[in-house]
Amino acid sequence: YEYGERELLSYRSLPAETPDGHRLVLRCNVELPSEVPHALAQGAEGVGLFRSEFLYLGRQFPPDEEEQFDAYREIATAMAPHEVTIRTLDVGGDKFVPEINLSDEVNPALGLRGVRFSLADRQLLKIQLRAILRVSALGPVRVMFPMISGVSEIRACKSILHQAMAELSREGIDFDGRLPVGIMIETPSAAMIADKLAREVDFFSVGTNDLIQYCLAVDRSNEHVAYLYEPLHPAILRALQMICSAARQAGIKVAMCGEMAAEPLYLPILIGLGFGELSMNAPCIPRVKRVVRQIRYSEGKELLEKLLQMSTVAEVTHCLEEEMMTRIPDLFGKTDI
Amino acid sequence: YEYGERELLSYRSLPAETPDGHRLVLRCNVELPSEVPHALAQGAEGVGLFRSEFLYLGRQFPPDEEEQFDAYREIATAMAPHEVTIRTLDVGGDKFVPEINLSDEVNPALGLRGVRFSLADRQLLKIQLRAILRVSALGPVRVMFPMISGVSEIRACKSILHQAMAELSREGIDFDGRLPVGIMIETPSAAMIADKLAREVDFFSVGTNDLIQYCLAVDRSNEHVAYLYEPLHPAILRALQMICSAARQAGIKVAMCGEMAAEPLYLPILIGLGFGELSMNAPCIPRVKRVVRQIRYSEGKELLEKLLQMSTVAEVTHCLEEEMMTRIPDLFGKTDI
Ligand SMILES: [Mg+2]
Ligand SMILES: [Mg+2]
Repeated sequence: YEYGERELLSYRSLPAETPDGHRLVLRCNVELPSEVPHALAQGAEGVGLFRSEFLYLGRQFPPDEEEQFDAYREIATAMAPHEVTIRTLDVGGDKFVPEINLSDEVNPALGLRGVRFSLADRQLLKIQLRAILRVSALGPVRVMFPMISGVSEIRACKSILHQAMAELSREGIDFDGRLPVGIMIETPSAAMIADKLAREVDFFSVGTNDLIQYCLAVDRSNEHVAYLYEPLHPAILRALQMICSAARQAGIKVAMCGEMAAEPLYLPILIGLGFGELSMNAPCIPRVKRVVRQIRYSEGKELLEKLLQMSTVAEVTHCLEEEMMTRIPDLFGKTDI
Repeated sequence: YEYGERELLSYRSLPAETPDGHRLVLRCNVELPSEVPHALAQGAEGVGLFRSEFLYLGRQFPPDEEEQFDAYREIATAMAPHEVTIRTLDVGGDKFVPEINLSDEVNPALGLRGVRFSLADRQLLKIQLRAILRVSALGPVRVMFPMISGVSEIRACKSILHQAMAELSREGIDFDGRLPVGIMIETPSAAMIADKLAREVDFFSVGTNDLIQYCLAVDRSNEHVAYLYEPLHPAILRALQMICSAARQAGIKVAMCGEMAAEPLYLPILIGLGFGELSMNAPCIPRVKRVVRQIRYSEGKELLEKLLQMSTVAEVTHCLEEEMMTRIPDLFGKTDI
């Protein structure tokens, strides 16, 4: 993708719309509120994933409600009128909060991560939800729970959210009673029962890094098996299809916030699957937007159907590369992929 | 299940057949050839899973072809005329072969396990396949590959199998040219593309321990999250349904060799799913047979359909327990499950 910065810059202010009028929303993944101005400059239309971990990591005690409120308000205010998606604390696995005593886990990736951690310390979760709710009165905010594997987990989260709402009401504190509630789809389980989960929430956001890792049972940071980590694996395409079709049938929004969303080669697939939102590191946005504006939704769907018939990563990759070289030679023809 | 040993013993020689004539094959999981006589005495009709690891573990060098041949011949001879399913070396994760230098893996369950290990040392795999092939001339034997996540892995295994066959032919050594080839279904990926994998093999055997672990992203030996390990999770029921329906459509056999196969409460589900073979530790066979002989296939299918509609583990468990208490009060009515 040897294109000039200047040419790319011109895409920042254009809509992420396919030639046949299918509009996508490109958002940014953010670690710190201070990243927002730069993300806006890259053309981000909201935050698809705000990782709230920075508030918790590397300190002895978790942040109180006020400190969280300040951080969420900063990001919501900076991004307004665009929507900000705040993911609740996603620790465990590779992340870690020193305050809580996690014994050494043999397989941390299969351990006390994400929402499991929050449901093991519900008071901590409720404080976070109160802070998010308070900010929801000030600007468009969504809440998203990580590592959901089943319906009872999201129901437990919603019940804590409702407790937080009831508390704030009693205290006379303002919040958005219709705060959109979503979940990360990143366990195979969640993909398999996406239809059941879709009835419980307002939106999905697919975390492809973990989804691929768990579906293929591959730790991609393990050099012995990293070669098996393949976003174009037929099982991954099928999982994505299950997720998107469940979202469509339930009439809820579906986003992708994993690294897969930022790879131009994969865009026809993501467009064909019907993703309404792609969230990525801000610097990737112009490049992705340029490609989106050159792929017809109808082409994406057609290509997807073809790829779903295939049996191996090699077949999928070859076909996709060939198609893209033919369809957009300017962008895909010159590289020797 | 407070039943007398004597009453149970009477089931050993009866077929594992539902009242409406659906015949299952109950087989044993075996670590050592010496376990076969006891398994036969419990009514095992073959070995559904022979773990070949004992030959490799705790020694400095892997066993040569002759040593393996002797072990496989011993088990095949002892079990004849029943079929013996030999699983190729399944190390990694919790198992370990000192000869090969596995660096410390952060998440061994997502690391160099099962067939990945064999495909990283193809010479070792070929020696094992030669030994299995030679025994296939002496009695009914099947070969099964563990931890398959995609079509290209099973194709690579089959190609090494064909090399071994070609070698033996050149050497004038006898083998069964139609040796049945199967795979464990134990990664979510394999469940999701079971239809594609079914075209490549003669049989499936579902390894529920790993399948559940990966689908739910739960290491069940981790005390913090063990509560999430649930065979009755709606996502697991759906995964099993995908696997069984793919097998049925391709006309291949489907077995279960994980611990889930030995739990009487789960049997109506497994019968309803259409499993043709259940393999378990031999002492469980009489108990399972007794229950199989009291559940109609039609009831199993009906109950399965009902359970598949449900959203949570609690709902599935409650409904299943109620149904079983009503249908077979002798077995399920007295326990306070
Ligand atoms: Mg994740
Ligand atoms: Mg296994």
